[in-house]
Amino acid sequence: MRAVAAAGLRRGLSTMLDPKVRAPSMVYISGEEMTAYAMQLVRAKWVEPYFDTSAWEYYDLSCAARDKTDDKVLKDAVEAGSRIGAIFKEPTITPTAVQQKEMGLKKAWGSPNGAMRRGWNGITISRDTIHIDGMELGFKEPVLFERHAVGGEYGAGWKQVGKGRLVTKFYPNDKYGEAVTVDERYLDDEHNVAVVYHNPYDNVTDLARHFFSRCLKAGITPYVVTKKTVFKWQEGFWQIMKSVFDAEFKPQFNQRGLLARSNGELPHLISDAATMQIIRWTQGGFGMAAHNYDGDMLTDEIAQVHRSPGFITSNLIGKRSDGVPIMEFEASHGTVADLWHAHQRGEETSFNPLGMAEALIGAMRHAADLDSANKVFVHHYTSMLRQAMHRTMVYGQGTRDLCGPDGLTTEEFIDKVAWRLDRYLKMGKAEAEEARTAPVRPNRKYRRNYAVVDEDAIAAMFKSYDTDGSGTIDLAEFTDMIVKLGVAPKKEGAEGAAEGK
Amino acid sequence: MRAVAAAGLRRGLSTMLDPKVRAPSMVYISGEEMTAYAMQLVRAKWVEPYFDTSAWEYYDLSCAARDKTDDKVLKDAVEAGSRIGAIFKEPTITPTAVQQKEMGLKKAWGSPNGAMRRGWNGITISRDTIHIDGMELGFKEPVLFERHAVGGEYGAGWKQVGKGRLVTKFYPNDKYGEAVTVDERYLDDEHNVAVVYHNPYDNVTDLARHFFSRCLKAGITPYVVTKKTVFKWQEGFWQIMKSVFDAEFKPQFNQRGLLARSNGELPHLISDAATMQIIRWTQGGFGMAAHNYDGDMLTDEIAQVHRSPGFITSNLIGKRSDGVPIMEFEASHGTVADLWHAHQRGEETSFNPLGMAEALIGAMRHAADLDSANKVFVHHYTSMLRQAMHRTMVYGQGTRDLCGPDGLTTEEFIDKVAWRLDRYLKMGKAEAEEARTAPVRPNRKYRRNYAVVDEDAIAAMFKSYDTDGSGTIDLAEFTDMIVKLGVAPKKEGAEGAAEGK
Repeated sequence: MRAVAAAGLRRGLSTMLDPKVRAPSMVYISGEEMTAYAMQLVRAKWVEPYFDTSAWEYYDLSCAARDKTDDKVLKDAVEAGSRIGAIFKEPTITPTAVQQKEMGLKKAWGSPNGAMRRGWNGITISRDTIHIDGMELGFKEPVLFERHAVGGEYGAGWKQVGKGRLVTKFYPNDKYGEAVTVDERYLDDEHNVAVVYHNPYDNVTDLARHFFSRCLKAGITPYVVTKKTVFKWQEGFWQIMKSVFDAEFKPQFNQRGLLARSNGELPHLISDAATMQIIRWTQGGFGMAAHNYDGDMLTDEIAQVHRSPGFITSNLIGKRSDGVPIMEFEASHGTVADLWHAHQRGEETSFNPLGMAEALIGAMRHAADLDSANKVFVHHYTSMLRQAMHRTMVYGQGTRDLCGPDGLTTEEFIDKVAWRLDRYLKMGKAEAEEARTAPVRPNRKYRRNYAVVDEDAIAAMFKSYDTDGSGTIDLAEFTDMIVKLGVAPKKEGAEGAAEGK
Repeated sequence: MRAVAAAGLRRGLSTMLDPKVRAPSMVYISGEEMTAYAMQLVRAKWVEPYFDTSAWEYYDLSCAARDKTDDKVLKDAVEAGSRIGAIFKEPTITPTAVQQKEMGLKKAWGSPNGAMRRGWNGITISRDTIHIDGMELGFKEPVLFERHAVGGEYGAGWKQVGKGRLVTKFYPNDKYGEAVTVDERYLDDEHNVAVVYHNPYDNVTDLARHFFSRCLKAGITPYVVTKKTVFKWQEGFWQIMKSVFDAEFKPQFNQRGLLARSNGELPHLISDAATMQIIRWTQGGFGMAAHNYDGDMLTDEIAQVHRSPGFITSNLIGKRSDGVPIMEFEASHGTVADLWHAHQRGEETSFNPLGMAEALIGAMRHAADLDSANKVFVHHYTSMLRQAMHRTMVYGQGTRDLCGPDGLTTEEFIDKVAWRLDRYLKMGKAEAEEARTAPVRPNRKYRRNYAVVDEDAIAAMFKSYDTDGSGTIDLAEFTDMIVKLGVAPKKEGAEGAAEGK
């Protein structure tokens, strides 16, 4: 009966699938190892059945392809990204000297990141927590993060030097007659490294707008994170952020009560204090914007609190000279070499493609925003794809990182999601919404007496056993608790022995 | 009977207390607010009854004293520290512009840290977790941390500049004819900050010896933390650490099996990966050594995992020109202004002095190492002081941060420890050891059936409910669990309603 009803409801969108929908133009950068293999399956089973992807431009950034083309493929990919504006990128390998030898490369090609950040005028790398409806990972509510994409020690010049004088001068507009001294110091160690870098702040205005818009949309409080109390030059970053905020965003944030804890003003957080708050604020529901290296450190910390780097995005936001936003979406993990080697040995693997799928969803949506022909369908399709993944995971059919040893293999999971995605796409909107909000496989608390359990009383009970107020119960607290509850397992014969004492 | 027995055991050490023992020479730097008040009580009730402290030199680094002496007091303190080598420092205030006005200061005196680090040839700031015997905070086993005390952006020169050329040159041995270019770059933003600093690496050899010796003594694995994969100049730091390790420490560490997870070699950890491991390695039992700013960020993160900055040390390790180690010990928290204001309003406070007491213990022990007259007694006294604090805390008589609303006030806690310390100092060694290892106030699991509970079975049970393998049980897991155990509170009347469905 169910199948009949579903068939009867096939209408509207399902008719759009034949012929396939033209996928908006996008740059697809492929990499290698496990992630490239999984994405092949994803494209074949999740994307191709519904889309004509002939407007996607493919660039192969595998080591072999970069080597063969003397890295022309990277230049081409950057050019295409500038032209089209929406880019999906698989994880790639930046070969070590050992890998260069193993793969027989002409040279150890460097990370493509620099060329992409420069070529697309990178403003910020947005790294947000990924959430699964119906399953808790780390932070309960989203955390949004902007990491300034340029400046800092990543672009530093340096030299190892001995005793002597280090002098840094600046020549405004390249005029040698008007030198100003930035710094002059005498180094009296035998072994020093001198380091010089600059932070370009012109694009911080764009970073600020991107950040505050996203925080406002998500309804969360934005924090600007710097070490400006000691690193005085970072005051400029804060001032730009604050002036954009005050001029363009403050009333809206105040209206929504998002600045209640900071007297109605944009809050600033010192970077080392941020390392502490990230651990404390597990409720989530906040945003942070930081310099490049601070962002590197803090987003990795956030990833760990949120379970793993598999559950965090990594999106480079740039800008073309004509103002069009260039956005490149990637997973924040690597090529997963260990699973790849297992796969090559013919072993079963269980790779969770959520991070890459989220990147693909982001890239397809941005592509549709820029090339709006099939925007409505792309948004619907990507919503259904996300829903199909989440439901599959929540139903206990996720990969083993989420569902334990009973979890599905890489291939099984992709197939299961494909099946569910197809089902959702063939549903009407109301039915799809019902599928989205339907109660999940009843979990234990509903199995016996649906809606009978008093959740508030349980929360109070939990709190009473969480004696250190950490929000979690550790083994010591657990032991104490089950003894109190009278359900602690006892040692065989021990009860009698104790009584005999 | 107990009192009689205790009196009967008074022997040995108790006779040393009259006359008082001369405390080895030490520099005592006082600060202000709550911490200065608490330390007054600590000195009066914990120290003075047993020690003649006339060999302590006192320096007052309150804002008022620095202002009055035009900061001569800081110079004097630094000179005394160099001369004596053992320094205890209370938290001080580095006044903001607002505080300068409020306090009527001539100027906003800067942090004294720079002068102390320079004056004492600061090598490393050792920041270790503080543990309480019988009470778990965050990390189960100690974490030792070395933060390079010099170099990095703390000593950077900088300037805000527009478009133009930034040129950094190095003149070896100050000879202007032999300039080498460190870096040259054209800045094309309108708003840039140029930043230049150097890392002096001569003292990294000393840092390495201090770090590896401490790790070996504690029986833990040392990790060198850098971002050298990207910040190539940090390779020098790693190389020095590794060469000291290989030449002087490697066999001992291997003999003790401390390099089992790194193929018998000194392990390196990338700084952003370290932010993740600090959250994962809650078992503790590891050491980390890092550059200055990385150390700032990572030790604050460690402090948070270990509950709060109240439970971490902050010890500056320097070296006099004759090779004598200069060590300055302080708590890693500030002057606790909020409690001070409450105290001034006549309200009850509950300030935990553990961090400062640990610093005092460290300073007194180092003083005794340098001026060895009463070394044996100082070590015994400080052990008993630590034990008196820990036992008081574990007996539920700690301050409210540890013992909740029933905890003692600032004054009550100091009195209670004083009483217990006196008791321990009057005991013989065997009795003191018994007091140290005596079972604590039986906790719940022992209340009914001592030794009956099967801890292994409980651990297995805990694991089965810790469905995400995080090592803790959160509210969702807890709810699931107590339903399974059949002890979940139910909504009034709901059971009947459900059954009626």
